[in-house]
Amino acid sequence: MSDASLPPALHDALLTLLGPAGFLTDATDTASFCTDWRLLYHGRCAAVLRPATTEDCAKAVALCAQYDVPMVPQGGNTSMVGGATPDESGKAVVISTTRMTRILSIDHADLTMTVEAGVTLKAAQDAAWAEDLMLPLSISSEGSADIGGILATNAGGNNTVRYGNARELALGLEAVLPDGSVLNLLRKLRKDNTGYALRQLLVGSEGTLGLITTAVLQLQPRPRSRETALCAVADAKSALALFAAFRKQDPAAIQAFEYMSGTSMALVNTLIESCPLPLSEPAPAYALVELGSPREDESLRTLMEDVLGQALEEGLVTDAVLAESETQRQNIWMIREEHAEAQKRAGASVKNDVSVPLAAIPDFIEEATKACESLVPGIRVAPFGHIGDGNIHFNLVQPEGADPAAFLAQDHALMDAVAEIVRKFGGSFSAEHGVGQLKTYMMPSWRGGAELETMRKIKNALDPKNLMNPGKIFPSH
Amino acid sequence: MSDASLPPALHDALLTLLGPAGFLTDATDTASFCTDWRLLYHGRCAAVLRPATTEDCAKAVALCAQYDVPMVPQGGNTSMVGGATPDESGKAVVISTTRMTRILSIDHADLTMTVEAGVTLKAAQDAAWAEDLMLPLSISSEGSADIGGILATNAGGNNTVRYGNARELALGLEAVLPDGSVLNLLRKLRKDNTGYALRQLLVGSEGTLGLITTAVLQLQPRPRSRETALCAVADAKSALALFAAFRKQDPAAIQAFEYMSGTSMALVNTLIESCPLPLSEPAPAYALVELGSPREDESLRTLMEDVLGQALEEGLVTDAVLAESETQRQNIWMIREEHAEAQKRAGASVKNDVSVPLAAIPDFIEEATKACESLVPGIRVAPFGHIGDGNIHFNLVQPEGADPAAFLAQDHALMDAVAEIVRKFGGSFSAEHGVGQLKTYMMPSWRGGAELETMRKIKNALDPKNLMNPGKIFPSH
Repeated sequence: MSDASLPPALHDALLTLLGPAGFLTDATDTASFCTDWRLLYHGRCAAVLRPATTEDCAKAVALCAQYDVPMVPQGGNTSMVGGATPDESGKAVVISTTRMTRILSIDHADLTMTVEAGVTLKAAQDAAWAEDLMLPLSISSEGSADIGGILATNAGGNNTVRYGNARELALGLEAVLPDGSVLNLLRKLRKDNTGYALRQLLVGSEGTLGLITTAVLQLQPRPRSRETALCAVADAKSALALFAAFRKQDPAAIQAFEYMSGTSMALVNTLIESCPLPLSEPAPAYALVELGSPREDESLRTLMEDVLGQALEEGLVTDAVLAESETQRQNIWMIREEHAEAQKRAGASVKNDVSVPLAAIPDFIEEATKACESLVPGIRVAPFGHIGDGNIHFNLVQPEGADPAAFLAQDHALMDAVAEIVRKFGGSFSAEHGVGQLKTYMMPSWRGGAELETMRKIKNALDPKNLMNPGKIFPSH
Repeated sequence: MSDASLPPALHDALLTLLGPAGFLTDATDTASFCTDWRLLYHGRCAAVLRPATTEDCAKAVALCAQYDVPMVPQGGNTSMVGGATPDESGKAVVISTTRMTRILSIDHADLTMTVEAGVTLKAAQDAAWAEDLMLPLSISSEGSADIGGILATNAGGNNTVRYGNARELALGLEAVLPDGSVLNLLRKLRKDNTGYALRQLLVGSEGTLGLITTAVLQLQPRPRSRETALCAVADAKSALALFAAFRKQDPAAIQAFEYMSGTSMALVNTLIESCPLPLSEPAPAYALVELGSPREDESLRTLMEDVLGQALEEGLVTDAVLAESETQRQNIWMIREEHAEAQKRAGASVKNDVSVPLAAIPDFIEEATKACESLVPGIRVAPFGHIGDGNIHFNLVQPEGADPAAFLAQDHALMDAVAEIVRKFGGSFSAEHGVGQLKTYMMPSWRGGAELETMRKIKNALDPKNLMNPGKIFPSH
């Protein structure tokens, strides 16, 4: 809330370096940087630093390191797991990338863009699109989430099934290390075997190894044709079989492949006025498939119709609607994107962002559903998500008319029940969202032994004073 | 050569653990493990350990660590840079993966295969192909190179342009760490944000952080149609423009895009009997393009003909031949693959495995050619390689009739001249081959400062006694 805890010499040096616009200490200015958007955490900070350049950022980090002041990197502040929120001690400074917003270049020969960390994902997408290119990463918070945060958390989203996670898109990187030195890996090379994969290591390290300042991102040609369909299916097994049928024909054409349970879809159709079901009757489950191609020819339409035709014939799909216009396409996507909002309107809910191998998805959903239903009779098990990546948002909505608080009192029991089934299938307790501070307690039992030990050794080697985003990823004991 | 330097207790423990087939000490048995295939290095070792399981490998590593015995992991022994050859002290043991050759599973739902480190790349390719799938990685040493080595060096090759390097294919990994603990990252998850990217870090670390024992590799549907063309072009700029034309239509269809200089092609046509030029007259340069699709329809042929037709019309391509059969396809590829052999027959040569951003390739080739020609009049500058990745094998062949030794006496001057131009364009001194022991001396000037320092910190943290593949990647000072 105030800079009381900063040593005066550091205070003055930072103010001189960053100027009043780059050095916020007033509680009204710093408040929004100290709370995550889910309102799970309410921290405090000694100051918010907003460097405008890598050079200033490096100098600021070096100064803080000199005085042993903890630093919390923060991008668009859209973490799902409190990954960018300082603790309650008020000792840390938040280093915000919000002033580093330059798009430095777009390269048509290499299909890359070089951007500063504070550029929002949406702004980067738009800049690429305007040049007839596409940044193939899309997440629901893209209007606020920035490139630094996207990379620090290795964001996923709808297009991972085709283009990989954020890590796969980062061809080059620049970061300020915990001691204030600048790690310049801003190369545009598709092949470069000259030592350790530091770029890949920094991506997904959630700000605990350094602060990402600039990145070279791989682009794609902008799609010229897209085909989008919403399909009614019997269950997740049928949805997966449909995915496999498309993949067998052309894995590269699949831009997105999403799953929605009938329960979750019914909430959307009932509670979101603009989202009626565009099929003749409700189904037990649904698949949303989007194909894309940089070509303008009819081959994509043919592919969609061939595979869906065959699937209807075989009974794999019981009904389907194809988008015949961009408006229809957006309507189908709106249905998918309103699942979180519909669940919110249905009452209290418990969220599980999990992944399992593709083959295990049907059994996982069946077993986890049973487990949750037996724990809380009347619970509405409403999974949906990126089934093509094995990533299911296994969300649980309170029984109709039940007391929200009573339901939420069972959140740990429910999460643990789901987690044990995920574990049985060799899955992950955090597919997209990262560990942050919300899930550090899960690390020892899920990633313990040699894995967590190796991570700790790397952390200690690069940040021996534990100044960079302390309390994230690693449990305190 | 002998196990003289192993403490007797360690000798006995290793023999008991691994048995006579897994513990070689006789000089005739160990000789082939102590020399690289290029015959650049002639090392010695105290023994060759050939564990048959991860468990035995872990126990052997723990024993060696206990006695401070250095360990050199070795796969198919096909390193281009001496990366798997022990030094001359004779103190190290070689740990060979040649007995870990099980293909553990092929998963059609997840499109993965799980294989032990000693499986050759060819055997893994064949196993996938037999199940109607494809392991999309191909390098010239694939008959000997094994999966452990492929991953330890982050191998590239012909299909990187479409599917990425080995690192991008490794979905899961198991490795024995320098202290003998087992790092089990054998997950089959496309999304898993639970801590640091240890898998990506291990890949490409050239055995200096641990010994890879098992991997989960991503597969693709087997291609049902392929179109292959050899095109005559004016220069690298035209080849790149042709690449961009294909990429704009369908980047995912491009399975390979290779460049061959006229000089290098002439050597092939002249010196390799089975490889005449399949075009009516020689050209200044050539592009080899291969398109692939899992579909059987005609769309790929149409794409090839459309793009080439347009390119011929615009003068971008001056002549082209399309493979009309699998035999013709193989003949075109043989021409590409015989470049190294033809250069060998033409006399002494100097090899540079470099990469630059795509946009810089034409200027790089032009400037580096001039520099080499001015250093050695009559030199035959014969570049070829994976132009779609920005990766050029900028090879230099001695003047006709010149003394090979006199030419090779200038190898450092030539390599330095090429390297300086690569550096100017933000390139890499080792695109595919890694650092090994051949190129450690280049690390400080190319990757020095915070980058090399960070690598050293990680190495010291995970291998404080420097027992795992010492002398590789890092210069001794």
